Amino acid sequence: MHPAYNDLKRRLAEVDDLTSAAALLQWDQQTHMPEGGAEARGRQLATLQRLAHQKFTDEAIGELLDDLTGESAAWPYDSDEASLLRVTSREYARATRIPADFVAEVSSHAATTFSAWAVARPANDFASLRPKLEKSLELSRRYADFFPESAEPIDAHIANSDFGMTAASVGELFAQLRTELVPLVRVIAECPPIDDAPLYQHYPEDAQLRFGEEVARQLGYDFQRGRQDKTHHPFATKFSVNDVRITTRLDEKWLSEGLFGTIHETGHALYEQGVDARLEATPLALGTSAGVHESQSRLWENLVGRSRAFWKHFYGPLQELFPTQLGEVPLEAFYRAINKVQPSLIRTEADEVTYNLHVLLRFDLERALLNGELAVADLPEAWNGRMEADLGLTPPDDRNGVLQDVHWFDGFIGGAFQGYTLGNVMSAQFFAAAQSAHPEIPGQIETGRFDSLREWMRANIYCHGRKFTADELLRRATGGPLSITPYMAYLRRKYGELYGL
Amino acid sequence: MHPAYNDLKRRLAEVDDLTSAAALLQWDQQTHMPEGGAEARGRQLATLQRLAHQKFTDEAIGELLDDLTGESAAWPYDSDEASLLRVTSREYARATRIPADFVAEVSSHAATTFSAWAVARPANDFASLRPKLEKSLELSRRYADFFPESAEPIDAHIANSDFGMTAASVGELFAQLRTELVPLVRVIAECPPIDDAPLYQHYPEDAQLRFGEEVARQLGYDFQRGRQDKTHHPFATKFSVNDVRITTRLDEKWLSEGLFGTIHETGHALYEQGVDARLEATPLALGTSAGVHESQSRLWENLVGRSRAFWKHFYGPLQELFPTQLGEVPLEAFYRAINKVQPSLIRTEADEVTYNLHVLLRFDLERALLNGELAVADLPEAWNGRMEADLGLTPPDDRNGVLQDVHWFDGFIGGAFQGYTLGNVMSAQFFAAAQSAHPEIPGQIETGRFDSLREWMRANIYCHGRKFTADELLRRATGGPLSITPYMAYLRRKYGELYGL
Repeated sequence: MHPAYNDLKRRLAEVDDLTSAAALLQWDQQTHMPEGGAEARGRQLATLQRLAHQKFTDEAIGELLDDLTGESAAWPYDSDEASLLRVTSREYARATRIPADFVAEVSSHAATTFSAWAVARPANDFASLRPKLEKSLELSRRYADFFPESAEPIDAHIANSDFGMTAASVGELFAQLRTELVPLVRVIAECPPIDDAPLYQHYPEDAQLRFGEEVARQLGYDFQRGRQDKTHHPFATKFSVNDVRITTRLDEKWLSEGLFGTIHETGHALYEQGVDARLEATPLALGTSAGVHESQSRLWENLVGRSRAFWKHFYGPLQELFPTQLGEVPLEAFYRAINKVQPSLIRTEADEVTYNLHVLLRFDLERALLNGELAVADLPEAWNGRMEADLGLTPPDDRNGVLQDVHWFDGFIGGAFQGYTLGNVMSAQFFAAAQSAHPEIPGQIETGRFDSLREWMRANIYCHGRKFTADELLRRATGGPLSITPYMAYLRRKYGELYGL
Repeated sequence: MHPAYNDLKRRLAEVDDLTSAAALLQWDQQTHMPEGGAEARGRQLATLQRLAHQKFTDEAIGELLDDLTGESAAWPYDSDEASLLRVTSREYARATRIPADFVAEVSSHAATTFSAWAVARPANDFASLRPKLEKSLELSRRYADFFPESAEPIDAHIANSDFGMTAASVGELFAQLRTELVPLVRVIAECPPIDDAPLYQHYPEDAQLRFGEEVARQLGYDFQRGRQDKTHHPFATKFSVNDVRITTRLDEKWLSEGLFGTIHETGHALYEQGVDARLEATPLALGTSAGVHESQSRLWENLVGRSRAFWKHFYGPLQELFPTQLGEVPLEAFYRAINKVQPSLIRTEADEVTYNLHVLLRFDLERALLNGELAVADLPEAWNGRMEADLGLTPPDDRNGVLQDVHWFDGFIGGAFQGYTLGNVMSAQFFAAAQSAHPEIPGQIETGRFDSLREWMRANIYCHGRKFTADELLRRATGGPLSITPYMAYLRRKYGELYGL
């Protein structure tokens, strides 16, 4: 290979070492770090992130990319080499637009806003956060100004998490989805409610942890290259393709929290563990977008983990582990309980059908904020109005409304939510394509075999890392572009049966 | 303060962020990291260490130090400012002697040697390590060549861990000690052996961990600013003055391993948690030398943790926790068991009296290697001969002889052992000085109060970090220089009574 290519890879590996080290510092902060460590940890993270940004935006990298552009005409589009050059050039062009001072300003503002939010949320105090949120909005708009070619300010933020999507394309998809979901939620709300009381009993933490780890193992998560720890806000993270970790939060009074949380993070981790080792220590060794990442967490959590087939295999062992809690609860009743639909206030606890309405609301509001169509001062009222319109509920306070998610309070406003729903939509497309290639998948799941499904995902999605955009991946893997049809078909089939619609 | 001083502190804080991040990566590697993570972790650590070295040896730091040297004449010697300038100048002068290429060569050789040792030790295979060890010796001598003013090659290595000491001063002290210890060990060996069978029973791990944490807490270790994890080779580490962690190894068949290991690491951690927060993020925010650090781990482990007074307080709770194991064992029998003297093969498991003979042996051998008086090929024979001479034992194999410690197999040969015995010697000097200032200390220990002792240590040693050298600290805190007299008096008094000498 061209010497410039090797030089580029060496420089990118150094950046990767710094960002991976920062990821470990964050993992530790959210799992094991004693309280006292917080202040120094903030400083250490800022230093690592600053150095990583400096090293990545170094002019020498720009020159190497320029040198290689001439060479690359002969490289096949989907080769590792062409992909590395393409994706790195794209990222470099974006990163070098942002002045280092601006990065530092955002980072410092984000840290103080996050601390203020951690106090204001339990105190239900939106007013004290308002000036900080106004500053966040200003910074988010200034960030967008570095990309004047964008049609809307939010496009610059969407491009960071879901490259290739825009406010226009996301907005159109979400509008279609809302048209279908709002009536579906209404119809279900009129049905007799499902009894989910069996999930709300005492489930000892240790047993939950053991069961979750066993499920993760059977799904294919490799504990030689990963581990699970407890945390407050669950996440998956990676320090290398051979060290991909998951975290979980358990509620001894509610089984679903830990169980489906673990399966969700396992989905993220299967993706990262499945990236081809050849891409290690480059910008390609990562899931390609927020949406595709969520497609995997949601696929394993919902399409697999909340399916009847899955519990035909796992319910026996679960009953054995919790005989007093579940011994008398039939499989069908358990299956219905874990799929109960009920409009609720908190996104992260929402069922599959109502979940997306929470996301659509946030996307529309942040888009309006960035477009200057909504003032921060009017945000709580706008939030509550939309909750009433879409879910028929009015939050009793801001704590259970506009203050519930960390996303607007730890940096920019914009770009952090659309991936959740894009992921749901794509999960059904990928699942349908895998099933059509391997009609045996549902039967395998009933017997605890997940390899055909997982290997299809690995070969079609995971192994590529960031070589392809979400759109490219979708077309290669499913033969078509993003579409809500398979997802709505899945919801209508599953919930139609459950609620006898 | 002078603007150059603030600029210097800012640069030093950046170096500290990198070394603290590296320390966290190492902690994780030895506690939680899944197997698969090893390869990438080595790369990430090398990058952080290289960047830290680059940033610390930056010419700009040299210029700032020069600028400040003029200013500093008016600063009191023991002020934070004068101390920072003095210690940083010393370290800078040493670090800038070492070419970056040499650092990289050592780091890479150390990594392969360590991996080879991890395989060769259980296989009892000295022969395969010999070429690597010869290379280590060559690198260690080349390192010493960067300090041509040293009287002996090992001086350059001693200066890294125990600044102010030399082969001559350490050698003289150790020779005195050996003259006194060898006959003492012989006399004890002729006494009827103490029965330590009660320590070798089944002690469940969870209960051991709980007890160890309670002891650490009562000694004054602050779990808001620390935590304990399990590991294979216990250590204490710090990421900031408010995040100082300990690790422990438990043996369910032998109580002493975990119990005294935990107290030992707690001693190291009390030191680091006691460093003045004003020194944070500078080269001063660390224990001052290997010897002074060991003086604290060994003081808390042995002078406190293996004392009769300590167990008057803790033995009741220990018996309650392990009633079947210890319910019938009287306090005095337990006290005798934990202080049994018996020549043995492994340094880390040795009793207080024989322990130093293990260290002296290693120090003399590495000194001879570096001086060209001993060849690597002859090392096992020299080791075994000295074991026979000093302890009356011949190792049955190299695994239990020359291969037992990691120190010669993870980088340089030289400088890593003398601190253990310097620490033992100093521990008695510090303890005597604390007792003479606070005669109530032994009585307090009997009632589980450790504050007078700990606060004396904090005020006289811990808070200063690296402001003073070991010699300066000793003179300030005890009124005199390093001396074996208090240590030998302690051993003779304690073991004279135990063995009726």
